[in-house]
This record gives sequence, structure tokens and C-alpha cells, in this order.
Amino acid sequence: MDLAISVDTVLVFISTALVLLMHAGFVMVEVGFNREKNALNITMKNFLIISLGPILFYLVGFAITFGEDVSGLFGTSGFLLKNIDLGLAIPLTAFFSFQAVFAATSATIVSGAVAERIKFSAFAIFSVVLLSIIYPVVGHWVWGGGWLANLGFVDFAGSTVVHSLGGWAALVGAFLLGPRIGKYENNKVTAIPGHNNPLGALGVLVLWFGWFGFNTGSALSASDVQVVSDIFTVTLLGSSAGVLSTMLVTALKYKKPDVSMSLNGALVGLVSITAGAAAFSPLGAIIVGAISGVVLVYSVELLDRIKIDDPVGAIAVHGIGGALGTIAVGLFAVDGGLFYGGGASLLIVQIVGVLAVAGWTIVASYITFKVIGILSGIRVSEEEEKVGLDISEHGSYAYSNLFHKDNLHAIHD
Amino acid sequence: MDLAISVDTVLVFISTALVLLMHAGFVMVEVGFNREKNALNITMKNFLIISLGPILFYLVGFAITFGEDVSGLFGTSGFLLKNIDLGLAIPLTAFFSFQAVFAATSATIVSGAVAERIKFSAFAIFSVVLLSIIYPVVGHWVWGGGWLANLGFVDFAGSTVVHSLGGWAALVGAFLLGPRIGKYENNKVTAIPGHNNPLGALGVLVLWFGWFGFNTGSALSASDVQVVSDIFTVTLLGSSAGVLSTMLVTALKYKKPDVSMSLNGALVGLVSITAGAAAFSPLGAIIVGAISGVVLVYSVELLDRIKIDDPVGAIAVHGIGGALGTIAVGLFAVDGGLFYGGGASLLIVQIVGVLAVAGWTIVASYITFKVIGILSGIRVSEEEEKVGLDISEHGSYAYSNLFHKDNLHAIHD
Amino acid sequence: MDLAISVDTVLVFISTALVLLMHAGFVMVEVGFNREKNALNITMKNFLIISLGPILFYLVGFAITFGEDVSGLFGTSGFLLKNIDLGLAIPLTAFFSFQAVFAATSATIVSGAVAERIKFSAFAIFSVVLLSIIYPVVGHWVWGGGWLANLGFVDFAGSTVVHSLGGWAALVGAFLLGPRIGKYENNKVTAIPGHNNPLGALGVLVLWFGWFGFNTGSALSASDVQVVSDIFTVTLLGSSAGVLSTMLVTALKYKKPDVSMSLNGALVGLVSITAGAAAFSPLGAIIVGAISGVVLVYSVELLDRIKIDDPVGAIAVHGIGGALGTIAVGLFAVDGGLFYGGGASLLIVQIVGVLAVAGWTIVASYITFKVIGILSGIRVSEEEEKVGLDISEHGSYAYSNLFHKDNLHAIHD
Repeated sequence: MDLAISVDTVLVFISTALVLLMHAGFVMVEVGFNREKNALNITMKNFLIISLGPILFYLVGFAITFGEDVSGLFGTSGFLLKNIDLGLAIPLTAFFSFQAVFAATSATIVSGAVAERIKFSAFAIFSVVLLSIIYPVVGHWVWGGGWLANLGFVDFAGSTVVHSLGGWAALVGAFLLGPRIGKYENNKVTAIPGHNNPLGALGVLVLWFGWFGFNTGSALSASDVQVVSDIFTVTLLGSSAGVLSTMLVTALKYKKPDVSMSLNGALVGLVSITAGAAAFSPLGAIIVGAISGVVLVYSVELLDRIKIDDPVGAIAVHGIGGALGTIAVGLFAVDGGLFYGGGASLLIVQIVGVLAVAGWTIVASYITFKVIGILSGIRVSEEEEKVGLDISEHGSYAYSNLFHKDNLHAIHD
Repeated sequence: MDLAISVDTVLVFISTALVLLMHAGFVMVEVGFNREKNALNITMKNFLIISLGPILFYLVGFAITFGEDVSGLFGTSGFLLKNIDLGLAIPLTAFFSFQAVFAATSATIVSGAVAERIKFSAFAIFSVVLLSIIYPVVGHWVWGGGWLANLGFVDFAGSTVVHSLGGWAALVGAFLLGPRIGKYENNKVTAIPGHNNPLGALGVLVLWFGWFGFNTGSALSASDVQVVSDIFTVTLLGSSAGVLSTMLVTALKYKKPDVSMSLNGALVGLVSITAGAAAFSPLGAIIVGAISGVVLVYSVELLDRIKIDDPVGAIAVHGIGGALGTIAVGLFAVDGGLFYGGGASLLIVQIVGVLAVAGWTIVASYITFKVIGILSGIRVSEEEEKVGLDISEHGSYAYSNLFHKDNLHAIHD
Repeated sequence: MDLAISVDTVLVFISTALVLLMHAGFVMVEVGFNREKNALNITMKNFLIISLGPILFYLVGFAITFGEDVSGLFGTSGFLLKNIDLGLAIPLTAFFSFQAVFAATSATIVSGAVAERIKFSAFAIFSVVLLSIIYPVVGHWVWGGGWLANLGFVDFAGSTVVHSLGGWAALVGAFLLGPRIGKYENNKVTAIPGHNNPLGALGVLVLWFGWFGFNTGSALSASDVQVVSDIFTVTLLGSSAGVLSTMLVTALKYKKPDVSMSLNGALVGLVSITAGAAAFSPLGAIIVGAISGVVLVYSVELLDRIKIDDPVGAIAVHGIGGALGTIAVGLFAVDGGLFYGGGASLLIVQIVGVLAVAGWTIVASYITFKVIGILSGIRVSEEEEKVGLDISEHGSYAYSNLFHKDNLHAIHD
């Protein structure tokens, strides 16, 4: 018995480390797919989130998520991990650490979509609100015994709680900030290529690696070895299918397999099987992952058409992919899904949950960004945007004598 | 009893994730040691393999490797993981996932040697054949109860099954493609330096990290703690010896310790102790690793002399290093090796296995590449090679305004 | 009982791999924060250490650290892991491998501070002495049953044994080498910016990830799940506090949150809670981490004022941060700390230990560097320093056609 808890604790320990490392993946993706003049600012935003996440979750987030329930809406005990007993087998600190690094990833999703134009201070304040209130409330609804949990809503490792929540907050941020200078001028879409795409690709691979902890650790226990094994198998197959379907679709659509789409194909495959990581069959995971890859290609095009400028594709990958994956549980869950003879009831609950979380996140994010806008503004000046946020917000260059026009000149003159 | 399976499953879970991450290492090595104009193409080839691997292994590879034996040659049951029971303690899905990420690494080895000149479509088709047939057949011979397994052939974690197989396929590919433009012109060897060697070095470190899972996870169980502990100790010491011996040899031979040789020294040290990871003593591992480092230096020179252009040294590291390590089991295995009084019988079996796998892989790869060549050609045009495969195969640049001559000009003009 | 050892072995296995990966983090930090002309030399120094560490620890270091005690000063048995029985539950090889990768990190700390001007051969010889004698002696004092262990000195995972030891050796090296050309000319501090700061940031994140293994693996057992869980929680919260406090202090002090300080803030937070990883409460860890971040900012300034040129801040992060964290145990240890009513006795022992290790390391490092200086010199020539150590020590460039002035010219001419 005691020994079983040791095994579970080792599983949660390594999963916590893996989820922490996902932040390195997010940094690489966001840095690589943006311009060199904003690389340090992106890095600083992510270091801020990784650090704010655990501290805020310790102070307030954990209590709101897992504390004593009030009307199914939020928790009210467990601030600073005091006065709370969840009846878990593993120690509370192990559970807390895993949940804390989890929480931080939702804010990182926003970071990508608002890159290259948001004020550092505005992003910091928004992240505090997201991590202290917006995310913990949803966490409570789904994982803390709240109203969605009571309805039977299934979101195993956070397609909705983490990913679509992050995606909708990203959507609001990108909408309110407006596009980057030059992106949609003269009514056409001008690609702003990333300055180091191989780095972005590595970021995707690091996220893929970390996702094994994200999904498998969510089991919180290694007692049911079939469940644990199926989770990482589903994770592997779903993401693989996402890559292959985006490669195929873009090869057919654009004549050549597209790089940034294929990389995001891995991520959307992962996002889409996260809700049902413990519910899908291997074949179901392949189908859901493949569909998500196709949807991704059209989602990215759609967002450009409505002039939502998302430099890394976070809204399509995490928002739309997360919603799709959550709804897919209602269809593909071996136990209760429509396609497995489970009827429509789970599907309806899944749709209700997706809509409720989207509604809450969009409204709360909108109000938060608006208040920050009134108090201090959310977007840097045109001049700051042009010179780059590295120098305007942090007084540094990412690269000493390259990637930077003036420095390159200096070398040659 | 049940709990023991939980421990084993956690070990296999983390090892699976570690082997998946090795692909990030391969990407970094291949991107860093090649030119900037092919960085995205290399990345795409690897994303393709990582994704094809699990899907194809699920559909056919697993069945051919581990299914019901036919004459010791291949398996015939277990397609889509149906109708197969291997009598393993851990769940079938856990074993499948570990084996699937393993399989994918063999194709990645080919990717490095054929870089900068192979057509993306040709590489894709070859990978499908390698992952569906060439690799699973060898896997069956050695790990699936086939004829080499029956002879007592020892290849614990794949020096032959994964590495030398990948190396021989790489040799055939590099031979049939011919060298890159400019490599051996005017009868001399012109080094084509990598565009980001520190990235290549990081790739080696990531591979080193992942190799702990590659070797240790191959135990499939943590029950025998001595075996598990010895495996990762042998892995650590063998690779360290590989680095030190290449540094020393190149310092003596070229007056300065050579960077790319030393980095590949870590890899060849790892490849060489992989077959005997559970058979070597710590001291034996150091000796085998050190020898492999010396052999590496001369192998790389030899390949250049016979004008086999291998941009990353994959053939020397994985092909020759894998063969050497497999044969070394016949000499250094504490239980059965010639130097430990075990006689020559194991040594002979090891040599037979190495030769059989080399023969099969070379013939099968040759036929496959030839057929692809007839159908669609395997090499890009001279113009495409010069402009780079990133733009010709994917329509993108890896770096927005550097690493690329025309873009650099654009900045300055 | 046996199964408990399996769980412990899996914990130590994964922790060993994580600590090995920390070297990738060190490489990225040191490469990114230095100039492009020294990137390969830095990489080679680190590959040397990673490889020397395990081999030397196998030959001598392990015996001196953990062998039969002589007067509390050093051990004398266990060379080549023979004739030693530590009475551990886990196999000796598992314990050895974990300790060996640990040992190697102390030498890596030195690498950062002496970068861009030390001879490769001088660094190699110093590393041999550090890994064979300087580190193992301190290891014996604290972890091998030596005199500090007997006094009750607490250094759970090496704030003193690994980090401040590395920091003091780095201080001696940086002092004896003198500053890089141009750093303190005309009596002012000239910043020499790193050539790839995002890479340095990624290195910090990889170190952060690896540190979970560094601290948690030091428990050597997963039997006490509360201890294990508290260790990784303390690790997470302490590092987060380090980032936030450096961001805040530099935002107030310099008007903008400083990038390199904030990144090092994560590291100093980690260093500072490593000694007390099993002794601090979550809140205590936050306080200690936050203090260490503030101290970092002033330490870096102080070192520049006394003209100790440390290109990556290793002395401030590891030396001062490690001392601070070790002393903090005397104040914040829930069991025995002054602030928890434990009196001053532990605090005094902690201060004695910090001073003794500093004294031994500084004297031994000074003598070692002086002897190397007499035999062969420790600093490269002015010309070699200017052209860069990549070409002068290894005959290669890190980047084929960028980051390098002459190559950039070549492209444009």
C-alpha cells in the first residue's frame, strides 16, 4: 500500500519535471517563430509566467481550484496549502507542484498570440489575473468538484481547462491588441517569417516530450497500468497523426508540405487527444489527431481572413484544437462516446463545457484587458514596436552581432 | 506482483519519452552539421519519420516484428495490436509505444547521411519501406523469436537492430545518391562545414540523455535492480570513454582536439555499448567505448577516401560503431565473452548476426532506392541542390534574415 | 522490500539522466552568454568534463568520497568500485552513476567563469585535479562520513559541496587569469554581450528541469513520499521566487527588468534551496529564493567593481548563492533552524562548513592553477584570445558563414 504511493509519487515527480520543461518548448516555439528583435522579450514573458504560476497557485490558485466548493463555482480553502485535505494517496505537495506547472502553461499559450506588440507590464498584470482567477475557476468547475464535474464533463488532461482556455484568452488579447504593423496592410496578408524556424521546430519536439508527462502524469497514479500505458500510446499516435495529416493536406493544397503547419500539426494532434487521453482507443486517437491536423490548416487561414494576428498559431492550435478534442470525447470515448454506442448525452455535456469555458474566459479576459488598457495601455508605441521590444522593454539585444540589422552594419562598416 | 508491474510501466513510460526526445537530438545534429539552406528540409524529414514510425508500427511493423513466427523470418499476427498476446507483464500498449519510438530512430540515422540532396518524396517512400519491412524483419530475427534469437545472438538495445541497420541503409543511400556538389571535386576532399555546430553539440547531449531511456528501458522491468543499475552505468562510462579517446587521438593526430570527431565520439561510444549494455562490466564498457572512438576517426577518413559523402558521419557512428559493439559482446560479455573464458561460440554468433543484418539491409535498401529512382528519381536537380532544399522542397527559409545570403544582402542593400 | 528498491532505482535512474542533461544546460548558458568565436571551445571544455567526471570518479573520486574514512578527511577504499560496501539499498552502480554526474557539474561551474581566455590544456589538467581530489575530499567531509558530517552539517543536494565549491574554484581561476581583453579598460566596465542570449535562456530552463533530478534524486529513495514531494515543491517555489525577485529588483534599480539577471535569478534560486531542499517549508523556500535573487544583483555588481571578470556570473550564482543557501539552512530549517526555535547551533555548523569548504577549495585551486601556470601557462596569447579560441585551440568555426566577421565579409564580397 505505502509502496504504491511511492510509485505514484515517482510518476508525478517526473511528470511535474516534464511539464516544467514544456515551458522551454514554448519559449523555443515563440522565439523561433517571431523576429529577432523580440526574442528576449518573449523569453522574459515566459520566465515571468513560469515563476508567477507556482507562486500564485500556492498563494491563491490552488485554493480556488481544489478548495471547499461553493455552489459548484469555486473553492474557498487551501490558501498557502493550509487547511485542505483532498484525501489523495500522494502527498499534497506533490499534487500541488504538478497542478502548479500545469496552470502556468495556460498563460504561456497567451504569450505566443500577443507577441511582438504587448507591453511587458500589461502582460504581467493579465497573467496574474489569469493565474489567480480565470484559470482556477475553470479548474474548479472541471477538476475541483464544480458544476461541470458534476455533469460528467470529461477533460482528462486539459484540452479545455488548459488549452482552449489559453486559446480563448489569446484570441481576446490578439483581437484587442490588433495586428502587428504591416501584417494586414493594403488588405492582404503579409507573412512575417520567424527568425529561427529550426528553433521553433525543436520547441515543438520538446513540447511533444513534455506532453508525455502532461497526459500520463494526469493519471496521478500508476496503479492501473493499462490506463497509464494507453494514455501514452494515445498521446504518441494522436500527435503522429496530426503531423501526417497536416503534411498531406498542405502538400495537396499548396503543392509542397508546409513547414510551420506540419510543426503545429504535432501540437494540435497533442491538444486534440489530451481531453480523451484516457478515453480513446489507439485507432480513435489516430482519427481524432488526423482530423485536428486538417482543421488546423483551415483555422489558421480563417484567422488571417478575419485579421486576427497570431504570430505562432496559438489560437488555432490550442483554442480550436482544444475545443475539437474535448467534443471528440463525446464521439470517440470508448466508454460513453456516440460512435461507440454511448448515445449523445456525453457529447452534449462536452459541448456545454466547451461553450461555458469559452464564454467565461472570453468575458473575463476581455474585462481584464480593458481595465489594464484604461490604467496603463496594453500595446507598446509604434516606435517601440518597430525598434523591437528587446531594446524598448529590456534594454538588451538577443544577439550581439547578428540577427540585428544595426549590429550587422557595425560589423561591416 | 501487480505493484511490480506498476514500477515496470513507469520505467517504460519514461524510457519511451526519452527515446522520443532522441529525435530532437537527431534533428539538432543533422541541422547543425549541415547548411542553413537545408535546415527546414532536414527538420521536415525528421518530423515525418517520428510520425510515420508509430503509425506504421501500429499498422504493420509491430506484427512483423513480434507476431507469430514463420520459419524464424518474420511475424504474422498483431496488426493494429489485435490478436496478439506476448505474455508480457506490462500492458501491450506500453511495450508497443516503446518499440515504436525505437523503430523510428533507425530511419533517422538514414536521414543524416542522405541530407542536402535527397528528394523529400523519395525519402518518404524509403522510410515507409524501412519502417514497414526492412526494420521489422530484423527486429523479428533478433527480438521477435526469429532465427538469430534462436542462435543466441545478443543485441540488448539495438547496436545492430537499430544502429548498424540504420547505418547500412544510410550507406546505400549515400552511395546511390553520390556526393554533394563540390564535396570531392578535383580529387580532393572539401569540407562542407555545418552552419551551427553548437546546435549539433547540443543534439549530441540530448541524444546522450535520451540514450539512458533507450538502453535502460530495454530491460522492460525494474525488478532486477542490479541489471538496471549496471545498464545505465555502462551507458555512462562507455560514452565518456568514447569522447576521451576521440579527443586524445585527434589531439595526437591533428595537433588539436577535433570538435566534430569528439562530439561523434560520444555517440559512437553509446552505439558501441548498446548491444552489451546488460553484458559488459564497467571496465569492459570503458574499453569498448574507447576503442570505438579510435575506430571512428579512421572510419570517417576511410569513407571520405572512397568518396561516400555522409554529412553527419552517420555511417561511421551507427553502421561501423554498431557492428563493432555487437561483435564486442562476443569478446567482453562477462557471461560468455571470449576474454572472460566463454570461448568463441558467442563471438561467432555475433559476427554471423552482424553480417546477416548488413546483407539483408544493404540488399533491401538497394532494391528499394533503385525502384524509387526508376519511379520518380531520388536526387533533387543541381539547381535545387544549389538553392537549397528548404526553398525548393518546402518554399520556406529557415532563418528570416540571416544564414541566407540573399537575405543578408537584402539587409545591407 | 525488494520492490521498494526497484522504485528507488527507477528514481535514481531518472535523476541520473536529468543531472547528465544539466550539462546541456550549462553548455547553452556558457555558449549563449559568450562570443561566437569561443562557442566550440566552450562546448569542448564541457564535453571533456562530462566524460572525465564519470571515468575519474570511477577510478579514484568515488573511493576518496565514499571509501573507508581516515580521520574524517578522506576515504581510502572503493577504487574502480572494488572492495566497498556502503550498505545502501540500491545497487552500488546506481549510486555511483548518480554521484558521478553530480561530481562533473562542479567542474562545469568553473568552465563558465574562465571562458574565452583559458588554455584548453590548462583547463583539462585543472579539471582532473578538481574531479580527482578537490571535490572528492569535500564530498567525503559532507556526504562520506567525514568531519563535517559528524558535526551535523546539512547540505542535502550540494549548495556547498557542488555549487559553492565550483564557485570558489571559479573565483580563483577568474582572478588568476585576469579579465578578458577590453573588459575593464580605462577603469570602466565594458559589457561583452553574449552572442545568443535566447540560447542562454534555454540553458537556464534545461538546468531548471535537470535540477528536479539533482535535488529529488538526492533522496536516493522514494520510500518517504512526503520528503520526496516536499523536495520538488521546494525546488519549484524557490527558483520561481528567485526569478520574480531579480525581475522586481532590476525593474526598480534599472527601470527595466534585466534579462541576464532574471535568468540567473532562476539559477540562484535553485542553488540557494539545494542545501535545504529537504529542510525548508514551501514558504521558507520562497523567502530564501527571493533573498538569493536580491543578493545576486548586488554580488554581480560587486564582482565587476573588484574586476573579477566572470562572463556568465557563475561566481555570484554558485559561489555566493551556494554559501547563502547553506547558511540559510541554519535559519530556515523547519527542524533545527534558528527561526523555527532550533537555536544557533545548526547555524554555526553551517557557517563553519561554508568557510571550511571555501578555504580548502580556494587554497587547493590556487596551488593547482599556479603549478599549471608554471608548467605550461594558463592563459592563451593575446592574439589567440582576439582571434577566438575556436580557431586557435580547435581549428574550427562554430558557424560556417555567420556569427563570424570574416565569413560574413566573404559572403558579401
